[in-house]
Amino acid sequence: MKKLPLQGIIPPMVTPLTDNETLDRDGTVRLVEYLIAGGVHGIFILGTTGEAQSLACHLRHELTELVCATVAGRIPVLVGITDTSLEESLRLARKAAECGAAGVVAAPPYYYAPSQPELLDYYRALADALPLPLYLYNMPVHVKVTLEPQTVRRLAAHPNIVGLKDSSSDMVYFQTLLYLLGDQPGFALFLGPEQLTAEGVMLGAAGGVNGGANVFPRLYVALYEAALAHDLERVKSLQYRVMAVCTSLYTVGRYASSAIKGIKCALWLKGICNDYLPYPHRRFLASERAQVRAVVDRLDHLIGSEP
Amino acid sequence: MKKLPLQGIIPPMVTPLTDNETLDRDGTVRLVEYLIAGGVHGIFILGTTGEAQSLACHLRHELTELVCATVAGRIPVLVGITDTSLEESLRLARKAAECGAAGVVAAPPYYYAPSQPELLDYYRALADALPLPLYLYNMPVHVKVTLEPQTVRRLAAHPNIVGLKDSSSDMVYFQTLLYLLGDQPGFALFLGPEQLTAEGVMLGAAGGVNGGANVFPRLYVALYEAALAHDLERVKSLQYRVMAVCTSLYTVGRYASSAIKGIKCALWLKGICNDYLPYPHRRFLASERAQVRAVVDRLDHLIGSEP
Amino acid sequence: MKKLPLQGIIPPMVTPLTDNETLDRDGTVRLVEYLIAGGVHGIFILGTTGEAQSLACHLRHELTELVCATVAGRIPVLVGITDTSLEESLRLARKAAECGAAGVVAAPPYYYAPSQPELLDYYRALADALPLPLYLYNMPVHVKVTLEPQTVRRLAAHPNIVGLKDSSSDMVYFQTLLYLLGDQPGFALFLGPEQLTAEGVMLGAAGGVNGGANVFPRLYVALYEAALAHDLERVKSLQYRVMAVCTSLYTVGRYASSAIKGIKCALWLKGICNDYLPYPHRRFLASERAQVRAVVDRLDHLIGSEP
Amino acid sequence: MKKLPLQGIIPPMVTPLTDNETLDRDGTVRLVEYLIAGGVHGIFILGTTGEAQSLACHLRHELTELVCATVAGRIPVLVGITDTSLEESLRLARKAAECGAAGVVAAPPYYYAPSQPELLDYYRALADALPLPLYLYNMPVHVKVTLEPQTVRRLAAHPNIVGLKDSSSDMVYFQTLLYLLGDQPGFALFLGPEQLTAEGVMLGAAGGVNGGANVFPRLYVALYEAALAHDLERVKSLQYRVMAVCTSLYTVGRYASSAIKGIKCALWLKGICNDYLPYPHRRFLASERAQVRAVVDRLDHLIGSEP
Repeated sequence: MKKLPLQGIIPPMVTPLTDNETLDRDGTVRLVEYLIAGGVHGIFILGTTGEAQSLACHLRHELTELVCATVAGRIPVLVGITDTSLEESLRLARKAAECGAAGVVAAPPYYYAPSQPELLDYYRALADALPLPLYLYNMPVHVKVTLEPQTVRRLAAHPNIVGLKDSSSDMVYFQTLLYLLGDQPGFALFLGPEQLTAEGVMLGAAGGVNGGANVFPRLYVALYEAALAHDLERVKSLQYRVMAVCTSLYTVGRYASSAIKGIKCALWLKGICNDYLPYPHRRFLASERAQVRAVVDRLDHLIGSEP
Repeated sequence: MKKLPLQGIIPPMVTPLTDNETLDRDGTVRLVEYLIAGGVHGIFILGTTGEAQSLACHLRHELTELVCATVAGRIPVLVGITDTSLEESLRLARKAAECGAAGVVAAPPYYYAPSQPELLDYYRALADALPLPLYLYNMPVHVKVTLEPQTVRRLAAHPNIVGLKDSSSDMVYFQTLLYLLGDQPGFALFLGPEQLTAEGVMLGAAGGVNGGANVFPRLYVALYEAALAHDLERVKSLQYRVMAVCTSLYTVGRYASSAIKGIKCALWLKGICNDYLPYPHRRFLASERAQVRAVVDRLDHLIGSEP
Repeated sequence: MKKLPLQGIIPPMVTPLTDNETLDRDGTVRLVEYLIAGGVHGIFILGTTGEAQSLACHLRHELTELVCATVAGRIPVLVGITDTSLEESLRLARKAAECGAAGVVAAPPYYYAPSQPELLDYYRALADALPLPLYLYNMPVHVKVTLEPQTVRRLAAHPNIVGLKDSSSDMVYFQTLLYLLGDQPGFALFLGPEQLTAEGVMLGAAGGVNGGANVFPRLYVALYEAALAHDLERVKSLQYRVMAVCTSLYTVGRYASSAIKGIKCALWLKGICNDYLPYPHRRFLASERAQVRAVVDRLDHLIGSEP
Repeated sequence: MKKLPLQGIIPPMVTPLTDNETLDRDGTVRLVEYLIAGGVHGIFILGTTGEAQSLACHLRHELTELVCATVAGRIPVLVGITDTSLEESLRLARKAAECGAAGVVAAPPYYYAPSQPELLDYYRALADALPLPLYLYNMPVHVKVTLEPQTVRRLAAHPNIVGLKDSSSDMVYFQTLLYLLGDQPGFALFLGPEQLTAEGVMLGAAGGVNGGANVFPRLYVALYEAALAHDLERVKSLQYRVMAVCTSLYTVGRYASSAIKGIKCALWLKGICNDYLPYPHRRFLASERAQVRAVVDRLDHLIGSEP
């Protein structure tokens, strides 16, 4: 089952909602089409940016069904199954497999902080039972533990574990993974923070799972391609635009969730989907929305036309 | 709905299981009867010691039904509804109300770390919709945020929020809550760590939600009564026994989950219930079980007969 | 050298300064006399509240000389020798011994976070070379590491280590120390946070090293005496006053250093010493000083006359 | 005073000692000559790797004098003046200026965790009084606070603040600094972690302050030059060697200080200087030294001849 040939830009899709219990189904379809038109190499739903943990279980299943049906095999869909209950993770993975997803993604269970031996046991039990290939997900800020490089190295030997997304921002960690695993066929390393996709790809990463690609998919695809081609002048020019997104769209209001709020608000301004956020997050206030509008106008001007 | 007259020792009951997906129903009934025979003033299911986060949603519902039916109104039952999804918390709370529970308990959503204003919004939305009185649950080690005293003070004004369990071990925090809220009728402050129940109750706390009371309920009830009576000599003598439990039964193997493992193993040794732990935890190995047996023998000798 | 008969209230004295390099020598003398008149059982200089780490080495030596000369043997003086350089700690300890101090106090070196074995080595090397008895100082918020109970237990066997001051606020930690060491003659456990002195002393602590005793020494001495006498009604009444100090005098401006700023400002308002704070702290602005004046007036009214 | 034209590899030199109070003066001279022969672009003494915080003040002054005299102007010398006392930092800076150092480096005061406004005040007061240009030093793991990008941006406007060394490993942070400050003439951004020098320099950093350059100076200089030349194939090949150093020489014994221990031990094995470490660190045991010998042999073989 190894050797999933996935690489490139795989946006961690936000979850369009109309209220705490209801998907914005039309907005979801529009967003999927927008991303595919933008040239992304895959879609990752129900990650951190997808606010999976804030959604009731049945909504996670409904979203999986809707996105897979909309994508209809045009690009791979990855489904986040992160949960504190291994059984709920498996239920969602079985749903994902039924719907035609290409793989699943799981961060460690995030209530108790597991030890490294507990992580080994947990991921092996999970991978043994999964109907789809598994990507590990390192997300210490929310999960409280790091998947240490030696733990990842041991898990990478499992036939059903095919890669890792790192959202730590710690490039010493990521460079250590590249050194230990970078040449292992069938194990792919992705970067969460879009600020780091270029440098990671130049040194061996498979791609980026970058939130900003929800709004500006062409920009991130172009950055990925320039990095892959080792075109350093073009990388610097595109990196500047990505940094402009990060330092403006993600910093309105200075919430811990400002990035998600900013992305949803930008998509709403572009007429793509609702900007509702489920608890414990709330959508931007009117004054913050006005700030986002000014930011998006500046960024559209800087970045140029998107799909 | 305020003025729930709950005080005393309310054990955070472990969840007897036979495997990752199956309740040990007979063990659960025996454990409930053991606790009631031990004189506890209430039972709290699906807390941290109850490993709620590791259980599939349907198991949490099944356990609620079974415990409420077994208790049958003899003492109050509190049900932990902590979840990252507000909707799943409400579903479980509605189940708890149907089954006759006395109240529910909720720690903050624990994936994203919410800010204090987000916590106010979240708890007000939750309490507005709940069919039962709500106890707040401060558990920063797992949740990453503290319910700050000024946040608690504001939430305590909500007619449906009736108390708080503090598991932080930070007695400056707890003394601040006692100072701000200790004289507010209808708002009760409970201590999670059993090492602190005595000093807390002497200075105004309503009681203890103490894991060790799963195994030695009479000891903790006696400690609570001595503290309430300001019988300081008896408090010191009983505190010594409680410290003996904490420093021996909870320290085998030096896992983060050693306390839960030790309690479940002790209950298995006493013939009460299975010692299975759901992922990411694992039950003790044979050599560790032997250590627990020796510990329990010493403690039984020190503490004297329990029910 | 063991069995230093020290117990009671030992204020962690602030360091009166006129600027970043100059002691307020007159203010220092007035403050020492104020504390002695207030009935304190000892004085601890150059702790966290004394801002020792912000002072040049020669100022620490000058302060030691001045305070010891002023006290002139009326009560014991403890000198904080915490430093990242063991040699600087020893130099200051030799000065303290020359000046007639009763003991020294040392938190772990606080740049690199030492492991527990490194702490054992460090403290043994220090205690072997010291000319005075040593109190350990647990201060994890500044030092990043905790002196774990088993480390303390092993260090308590050293003939030159005679006690510990715990400023962690973690009463599970402190109760564990009391259980392991509470009955060891010649090893005394003190509480840093004044919110916890009463409950600690009732259960076996030797006293409190409480910042508020700089301003209201009689209040803290009275609280200690009530706790020692197990007079719980009086404890509750005095605890209420102490909590009033903590929640008003220490919270102006919401700086991490608000407690030190508040204490120095209150002493300045009372005409005792200058309120200058060395870098990285700054004294209160005029508007904050006005708030402190209102707070001190209310507290003086609540607490009653001090020396 | 701006526009210090410093860039390239500037090893954070270890401090050769024969015991806790005595410099290994001969070893220091040999090490300086070894580094200059290795082609480094500058030398940084009394940083974290230099264990400055463990040294008595007079030793820091003595080392400054010795290194500056040995270098004798051949390359720039930077002197770490990080201290919790602003006055001690200034005293050492004045010594550094007398001795002919090119600049000084200061992390925030590291006992109390300062707020960002306190950091602004502190660094402005320091830079105003300094006789030499100042490099900021971001080292959150030891200091507990981050110099936030907006704080750095404001400090970069000070005529006496000329750059920053970042040892956080957080490349989102570093990319944000590059975006905000990368084009500011006279402000240079250096990377502490050697794993990140290549990617940083390719995207605009001025160089690396990398511990491994104590042992393998030519390797790090070559990596820097390849990155500056955008020779990505050569970068990858040299990065592999650097990662081999990091994952073997720095991981013997799994101490927090394993990197410093490993570097000092390797230099001792190469006959350059003593491997003594001051408290709270200890030199490697014989069995660990044997492991380091095997590691160094393998690395020498992999990396090829050094000076």
